[in-house]
Amino acid sequence: MTRDDARRLDAHDPLARFREAFDLPEGMIYLDGNSLGPPPRAALARLQETAAREWGRDLITSWNLNGWIDAPLRVGGKIASLVGAKPNEVAAADSTSVNLFKLAAGALGLRPGRSVILSETGNFPTDLYVLEGLARTAGAELRAVPPDALLHAIDGDTAVVVLTHVHYKSARRWDMAQVTARAHAAGALMLWDLSHSTGAVAVDLNGTNADLAVGCGYKYLNGGPGAPAFLFVAERHQAQIRSPLSGWMGHAEPFAFEDGYRPSGDIRAQLCGTPGVLGLTALEAAVDLQPAADPAAVEAKGQALCDLFIAEVERRCSGMGVQLVTPRKAAERGLHVSFTHPHGYAVVQALIARGVVGDFRSPDVMRFGFSPLYLSHEEVWRAAEILHEVLATAAWDDEAYRTRAAVT
Amino acid sequence: MTRDDARRLDAHDPLARFREAFDLPEGMIYLDGNSLGPPPRAALARLQETAAREWGRDLITSWNLNGWIDAPLRVGGKIASLVGAKPNEVAAADSTSVNLFKLAAGALGLRPGRSVILSETGNFPTDLYVLEGLARTAGAELRAVPPDALLHAIDGDTAVVVLTHVHYKSARRWDMAQVTARAHAAGALMLWDLSHSTGAVAVDLNGTNADLAVGCGYKYLNGGPGAPAFLFVAERHQAQIRSPLSGWMGHAEPFAFEDGYRPSGDIRAQLCGTPGVLGLTALEAAVDLQPAADPAAVEAKGQALCDLFIAEVERRCSGMGVQLVTPRKAAERGLHVSFTHPHGYAVVQALIARGVVGDFRSPDVMRFGFSPLYLSHEEVWRAAEILHEVLATAAWDDEAYRTRAAVT
Repeated sequence: MTRDDARRLDAHDPLARFREAFDLPEGMIYLDGNSLGPPPRAALARLQETAAREWGRDLITSWNLNGWIDAPLRVGGKIASLVGAKPNEVAAADSTSVNLFKLAAGALGLRPGRSVILSETGNFPTDLYVLEGLARTAGAELRAVPPDALLHAIDGDTAVVVLTHVHYKSARRWDMAQVTARAHAAGALMLWDLSHSTGAVAVDLNGTNADLAVGCGYKYLNGGPGAPAFLFVAERHQAQIRSPLSGWMGHAEPFAFEDGYRPSGDIRAQLCGTPGVLGLTALEAAVDLQPAADPAAVEAKGQALCDLFIAEVERRCSGMGVQLVTPRKAAERGLHVSFTHPHGYAVVQALIARGVVGDFRSPDVMRFGFSPLYLSHEEVWRAAEILHEVLATAAWDDEAYRTRAAVT
Repeated sequence: MTRDDARRLDAHDPLARFREAFDLPEGMIYLDGNSLGPPPRAALARLQETAAREWGRDLITSWNLNGWIDAPLRVGGKIASLVGAKPNEVAAADSTSVNLFKLAAGALGLRPGRSVILSETGNFPTDLYVLEGLARTAGAELRAVPPDALLHAIDGDTAVVVLTHVHYKSARRWDMAQVTARAHAAGALMLWDLSHSTGAVAVDLNGTNADLAVGCGYKYLNGGPGAPAFLFVAERHQAQIRSPLSGWMGHAEPFAFEDGYRPSGDIRAQLCGTPGVLGLTALEAAVDLQPAADPAAVEAKGQALCDLFIAEVERRCSGMGVQLVTPRKAAERGLHVSFTHPHGYAVVQALIARGVVGDFRSPDVMRFGFSPLYLSHEEVWRAAEILHEVLATAAWDDEAYRTRAAVT
């Protein structure tokens, strides 16, 4: 492929118009939206409006007047359309970690007599850490097995299977329908972490019969640093599942100020404390930007960008030490591409210095995310070219790199 | 007292200069800062800077470059100086409800063999709700007793006593030293909710030997709607206490991406998910505004405002149905003043229509907060005058008020 070929693809890209909606530094090729999405201009404007006018002028009345109190369910309802859920099945609140704790604990309560939380080794660490903390607190057992042993490890002791749909490092994607069916066949519940999926690949929670899910607001949703996360509870479980974090926002009547907790009986029962309005409002404007009608088109462009990057890197950098660790088949991966390189950390730093922003994951993984809303085919083509330039000209200083890597 | 007397007090008020630091609507007398503090101008500016420049220009590098990753401990360290704690004993994160869950669960772990979480009936509801959820999850028991039975209810089964220092409705204040000593004498731990205290009354966590505390960022700290909350763990407990919400930010090496959780062993072990940067950054600017050196001066002015309001309301509104429910002695209360009135909801609405913003708490409590950083004696004098005008001229329509109250 030539640069002109890439430009021709851009000229016919139905999503190209979204680029203008983002505030990105001039000249930067930002391949780290899978870690922190850049600001949509609308999110910056909305944040300013919420802070200066709503907080500053309307003050306490904003909870009703400006809809702050409804923000968790309103934003959740919008995210629902991106993940194949009904609007009343999703809420935006807290962090992914906190939401995982709520739902995994709730799942244990729905499966009395079963004590195993099943996950995979190498899952995103906070998922394993949170499940470990829950297991200790609730007297359950976290069992983490290698991914290729996962399906066979689901048994009659399994209360809930907890997996990240798209792996944070390799981008390997689980078959949601297959795993969920296997969990259900054994009487277990299925809880998906959609952090690296939402806003990137088409997800159909209800179509695959998922029970529970959590996801991140600041990656492909571009909701801002540490944006509120979201959670999904299938309608059929909402009346029974109990959140351990039973704060006042989940009460049937939060402002009745009763001593005893009565869960609201719907998705709101998964809320806990007072919602973080500033974060929610930026996230809402960002989610509004998603071309919600067609997640499949978003995924299709993203996968085309991934294919382009893989092909160009492998064509240009053959024999230069890069090794693809992401599945080659689009259906088996998310929207980031990872290569290992013995000097991965140094290469990523050199790329950043030249305006190509990816990231590094220990010990040797260079990770590049291909968010479809603001990246062009030409930028991806150019990123591969710059990677080749870096690899062709670099002189490694192993000791210096090891020292720097250790403090990052 | 005359209006001129009030003006003379303002002329000699050492905290009067802070008023200019806040963006308050012209002509509004804002007596609801105990529910949602108004925006410090610096917080609005900092939020804009964080969003537009840090997020927009520096993107992912901001985690290190702009200190995002350190924000929870950095902001916590600043709050510490307001509550008599060491900088390394406080972190800003999550909501008050979530933090209460963490620390109460941690306390249960520190007191094996004891299963009772003791609190008071009528405590702020989310505290009771969260403790109820924890008790159910961890196999403990929540015991809530009337406040006058509290001290005698502490016994050898009590793992932790959980109380709100200043009551959200009455403003009644617990004697921290007395209750903490009683808890310790019985071998129990003491966990304070400082939501209505921090930034209002002088709190000395270490001076009173407290073990654990949580508190709110959006009331007297003026950190913004749903601002991150904070938590305190006395240094002596930090190595032993285990958070059930053991997310990656509390790991000894969050970016080592290990499968197994190793707590950091200090206050950072109480962090869970990715910090909400937008909320933290507004909170930080707001906390920076607190005249940290002298919480006693803040409390002294606030109590003078409370005294002024009580005296003026009782002088003017005698026989008009208002009844003080807040303790008369400054040492026994926080910085809000509550009166009951049979038509409390309607009176509060009429006050708001005249620019005096207080709030209503079911069934008949009119609540007025006296934040010392932006209120003048003259405003408080005028608020009492307007309350009298409202009471003197109002015609009640009971049915309409009941309907409106029910939907609030």
